[in-house]
Amino acid sequence: MPADDVARVRDFPVTWAVQTRWTDNDMFGHLNNAIYYALWDSAINAWIARDAGADPMTDAALPLVAQSGCRYIGELAYPDDLVVGIGVDRIGSSSVTFRLALYAAGAEPEDPVAAVGSWVHVYVDRVTRRPCPIPPEARVVYEAAR
Amino acid sequence: MPADDVARVRDFPVTWAVQTRWTDNDMFGHLNNAIYYALWDSAINAWIARDAGADPMTDAALPLVAQSGCRYIGELAYPDDLVVGIGVDRIGSSSVTFRLALYAAGAEPEDPVAAVGSWVHVYVDRVTRRPCPIPPEARVVYEAAR
Amino acid sequence: MPADDVARVRDFPVTWAVQTRWTDNDMFGHLNNAIYYALWDSAINAWIARDAGADPMTDAALPLVAQSGCRYIGELAYPDDLVVGIGVDRIGSSSVTFRLALYAAGAEPEDPVAAVGSWVHVYVDRVTRRPCPIPPEARVVYEAAR
Amino acid sequence: MPADDVARVRDFPVTWAVQTRWTDNDMFGHLNNAIYYALWDSAINAWIARDAGADPMTDAALPLVAQSGCRYIGELAYPDDLVVGIGVDRIGSSSVTFRLALYAAGAEPEDPVAAVGSWVHVYVDRVTRRPCPIPPEARVVYEAAR
Repeated sequence: MPADDVARVRDFPVTWAVQTRWTDNDMFGHLNNAIYYALWDSAINAWIARDAGADPMTDAALPLVAQSGCRYIGELAYPDDLVVGIGVDRIGSSSVTFRLALYAAGAEPEDPVAAVGSWVHVYVDRVTRRPCPIPPEARVVYEAAR
Repeated sequence: MPADDVARVRDFPVTWAVQTRWTDNDMFGHLNNAIYYALWDSAINAWIARDAGADPMTDAALPLVAQSGCRYIGELAYPDDLVVGIGVDRIGSSSVTFRLALYAAGAEPEDPVAAVGSWVHVYVDRVTRRPCPIPPEARVVYEAAR
Repeated sequence: MPADDVARVRDFPVTWAVQTRWTDNDMFGHLNNAIYYALWDSAINAWIARDAGADPMTDAALPLVAQSGCRYIGELAYPDDLVVGIGVDRIGSSSVTFRLALYAAGAEPEDPVAAVGSWVHVYVDRVTRRPCPIPPEARVVYEAAR
Repeated sequence: MPADDVARVRDFPVTWAVQTRWTDNDMFGHLNNAIYYALWDSAINAWIARDAGADPMTDAALPLVAQSGCRYIGELAYPDDLVVGIGVDRIGSSSVTFRLALYAAGAEPEDPVAAVGSWVHVYVDRVTRRPCPIPPEARVVYEAAR
């Protein structure tokens, strides 16, 4: 992140367009806090399905969330179109740590994002649920997103 | 609908692109049945927000769902992009009846849809919750979607 | 249903207590229409898991929803506790048709319900996705809920 | 938390029983990560509705989530009944910081929890969306949950 500690659109090399839904807004008329995580989950998994061929119903190695967090900076709301920003901070043998953002579609590179997140995926064996190596196809995708 | 009783893409004059999410798939690896309704809800409300200026947080007349139904024909799944098809079957003084469809993006006009739905919106007064007239801006939009 | 065509609490022999969630309420401050279906889905599946030993991750026969519908009669809202009412209307070789209700906890047998639903489950083979017989353990449970 | 750095059931003075739903389980057959946040949100808000009379549709001061986080330790799944554990770590003039847990119903005080969370609520004015004092009724409830 830049020196002023403000996360900006340009800090997240991978972008994924996401839609909002009627039920995303809660009684306060804005995106419910849990939806941010659901959108990040959807974006990360769709990205590795498209670019690394991941298939959650059959792959031997499953990426499970070990840790996540979000700092909510600005309000977002249905029916606006949004963008998920993804960057990779650390790649281990079994785990990958992402930095994440959510912001309104049309934002400029210098614009601050509306939310900043962190996310750790640990790959585990489908049957034993024990940590296992990151699949090579996924590793390539993650390396390119630092 | 056509004589063979199969609902096809071309039977729904208004189309609305919708995304799927990781959590839309249930343990059977396909779109959960309740998600169809959530997508229709999102599409109808985003459509009248855009074309009729509807604002759910401030409008005096609120469209509440009085009845809904779905016939599930084919399976759909995340991460595929989908399309909601909307047509208006009946416009009363307070209520509007929609026919709805859900199908995969890229379908041709003659293709059968993956699900067919019905939906009745009744406009009610925000405070009294009693039926009230359909707002004129929304009525114009509905008339054009028969 | 009784002669006056009003569905009442007593018309549904199986009852299942369900909780509401913050995100169930939409911008109108009441339970979103798609949540009714999600609650029925949860109640039906939890009931056959408990009483018929159904396991969605391993069973050879999966109950898929072929058709569903809901008539919304009264408003419900988080944080109230609710009850799902279930009755079986028809049992075929592969499919079972339910009548469903949703109402506030504490309602009396003669009270009208807040929503009435219909629901058709078709059992399909996990691999071929073709209709298959209702598992005997589930059939026993359904027979007892007419 | 105890010296061994393991969060246990007894570390969270307020407990709130929560149900799981069919759609909570994702394709991996366990509770989706975003659901943990949705359950915490529901439990915190239901708790302050019951004990402090909070009403999200009319209150002048709204508790918005400024920050949240979760460490996932063990798997949880529908249809199991769960418990949310809540403790208050810090009370400021406008904000309150919670420590949270999620674990299976029936756990003993010494049992480790399945997930540990943190959560910051900032009270804001409904209209201006600027921080405002924690309502006195809510403050009393928070003070008792340290």
